[in-house]
Amino acid sequence: MNYPTIPPIDFEASAAARKRQNSLTKPLGSAGYLEDLSVQIAGMTGSAIPDCSRKTVILMAADHGIAKEGVSPYPPEVTPQMVLNFLHGGAAINVLTRQVNSAVKIVDIGVAFDFGEIPGICHRKVARGTANMLTGPAMTREQAESAIRVGMETADESIDNGVQMIATGEMGIGNTTPSAAITAVLCGRAPAEVTGRGTGIDDAGLQRKIRIIERCIAVNQPDPGDAMDVLCKIGGLEIAGMAGVVIAAAARRVPVVLDGLISTVAAAIAVELVPETKHYLIAGHLSEEIGHRILLEKLGLRPLIQLNMRIGEGTGAVLAFSIVDASLNLLRNMATFEQAGVSDKV
Amino acid sequence: MNYPTIPPIDFEASAAARKRQNSLTKPLGSAGYLEDLSVQIAGMTGSAIPDCSRKTVILMAADHGIAKEGVSPYPPEVTPQMVLNFLHGGAAINVLTRQVNSAVKIVDIGVAFDFGEIPGICHRKVARGTANMLTGPAMTREQAESAIRVGMETADESIDNGVQMIATGEMGIGNTTPSAAITAVLCGRAPAEVTGRGTGIDDAGLQRKIRIIERCIAVNQPDPGDAMDVLCKIGGLEIAGMAGVVIAAAARRVPVVLDGLISTVAAAIAVELVPETKHYLIAGHLSEEIGHRILLEKLGLRPLIQLNMRIGEGTGAVLAFSIVDASLNLLRNMATFEQAGVSDKV
Repeated sequence: MNYPTIPPIDFEASAAARKRQNSLTKPLGSAGYLEDLSVQIAGMTGSAIPDCSRKTVILMAADHGIAKEGVSPYPPEVTPQMVLNFLHGGAAINVLTRQVNSAVKIVDIGVAFDFGEIPGICHRKVARGTANMLTGPAMTREQAESAIRVGMETADESIDNGVQMIATGEMGIGNTTPSAAITAVLCGRAPAEVTGRGTGIDDAGLQRKIRIIERCIAVNQPDPGDAMDVLCKIGGLEIAGMAGVVIAAAARRVPVVLDGLISTVAAAIAVELVPETKHYLIAGHLSEEIGHRILLEKLGLRPLIQLNMRIGEGTGAVLAFSIVDASLNLLRNMATFEQAGVSDKV
Repeated sequence: MNYPTIPPIDFEASAAARKRQNSLTKPLGSAGYLEDLSVQIAGMTGSAIPDCSRKTVILMAADHGIAKEGVSPYPPEVTPQMVLNFLHGGAAINVLTRQVNSAVKIVDIGVAFDFGEIPGICHRKVARGTANMLTGPAMTREQAESAIRVGMETADESIDNGVQMIATGEMGIGNTTPSAAITAVLCGRAPAEVTGRGTGIDDAGLQRKIRIIERCIAVNQPDPGDAMDVLCKIGGLEIAGMAGVVIAAAARRVPVVLDGLISTVAAAIAVELVPETKHYLIAGHLSEEIGHRILLEKLGLRPLIQLNMRIGEGTGAVLAFSIVDASLNLLRNMATFEQAGVSDKV
């Protein structure tokens, strides 16, 4: 599979942004990580005063064969039900995108349900869910590559339409199971170290989930050095799709704000496939899923928000859009010491 | 001095908010601290679905006699210069209030400068800065009480005009010095444990600042059990004013979002004066000032944002308005499982 070339970070733009931050009417460095973030985004976008006001979350929905093993407290039909909820505007992601003035793009990349003619959905179904990875690979290589391509095309479409910043989000009952499995393999950790409660399984369920993940890895023997192998064997269609979003966005210099574990797993796959993508990632938040912190550390990303959220759908990323906006608004709109006639340090 | 009565938290409203959160189309508890925050605000406001959309930051500006001891890298004339910057819309607080659709009220409660006829400023000067607390009390008791009254009246005016949530902010060259001094006395800590770099003094300056604070405490002997004594002797006019804001807002069931160290010191004084006010406080962020964490722990408050900010002006609190909005928007606007036809847990 061919991937686009990722441009290098523009250090001149970064340096110009840092110089401007230092000239603004606040104590030197006092906006803390908001300053660093604006400098990073300047480097990503190649603009000393970046405009990322047009934003979208790309929300990929898919089902998982493993869900029939009871890894989630919610039944698989909740995946299409929640997609309908997104389309009707009643879900958390709808409320938060309205607040921060972001678009939301709902992509059926692999839901085991026929949505038919319903306004607002992007029909890009690669398969009706993955196979049960307890007995073999979740996807064929062709399926995984198709799903990556869907993600790349979806991101490209959004960027062609003027989008300047993208968040990745997902819906898929059972999808913290492949996500924890991939985290374990990519980070060289035991499943017990990286497996969380997802939507809220109890203690006994968590122990079962860990054993199922251990068996999925044992059965499929994914090669930690081959991300495509890992993705096919113990991944998911929405995970592949979000990896494609990351790759296409990075190729166009568009920053990607990550949500929680599943979104970050997709980014980690993207980074394995195309290492330069890592320079275009922003961690929106730190979720409650225990594997998330480990994966963010591996990627060297600092989350903007830590509020014990674990909704998914892109909600943590979209909430972090407010922080990104603050960072870029300060850089763009504050007066300099000279403009305001304020005395600088003695 | 007479203080208003603070109404108790409305636990029925809290319980109703929690019940509604549990009925919304997200995994139970998955909005994490956003859910807890909405439940707390329901209890404060007495409304199961609180409306706090009309917000203001009350920004109190004042000068400090101690500034002539060189405790800040910026000269004292920066206080009025920055007030003019606020009035012209070029400061960080202006940029952030515009982003989150909050008003900002600039109060001259004690700047050593005559602003004259200039639109947008609230002229409530109690004194032209405090006295130098290195040689005696910063304020007389009359001055401190007047400043508290200014804060109470300012908050009351805003609430009369429909404001439903208030952030406290400040400007005053030198004001991390009285703030660290008060933190040391109220928390029973050595000044070295709670004194930070303020707007950015160097290592030698920090050591000098600590010794100055030690001497201010030794000279004035503030009584840790008497908050008014502490406030007069080692406080500031804007600190007294913000304490008044907290008291009046709590009396009217209006939540107060705190900014960094100085704003939180004012809240701690308010809580000492009128203990029930503590139920109406929200910690906007954790600042870089080392005393802030210690004081938040004493008050039992969890900060919403941690981005190493130390601008002051109310910026951390106003940035946190986005988080509060997310919390209340989810509670108000998400669909329930029943409305959306989504299956609940199996």
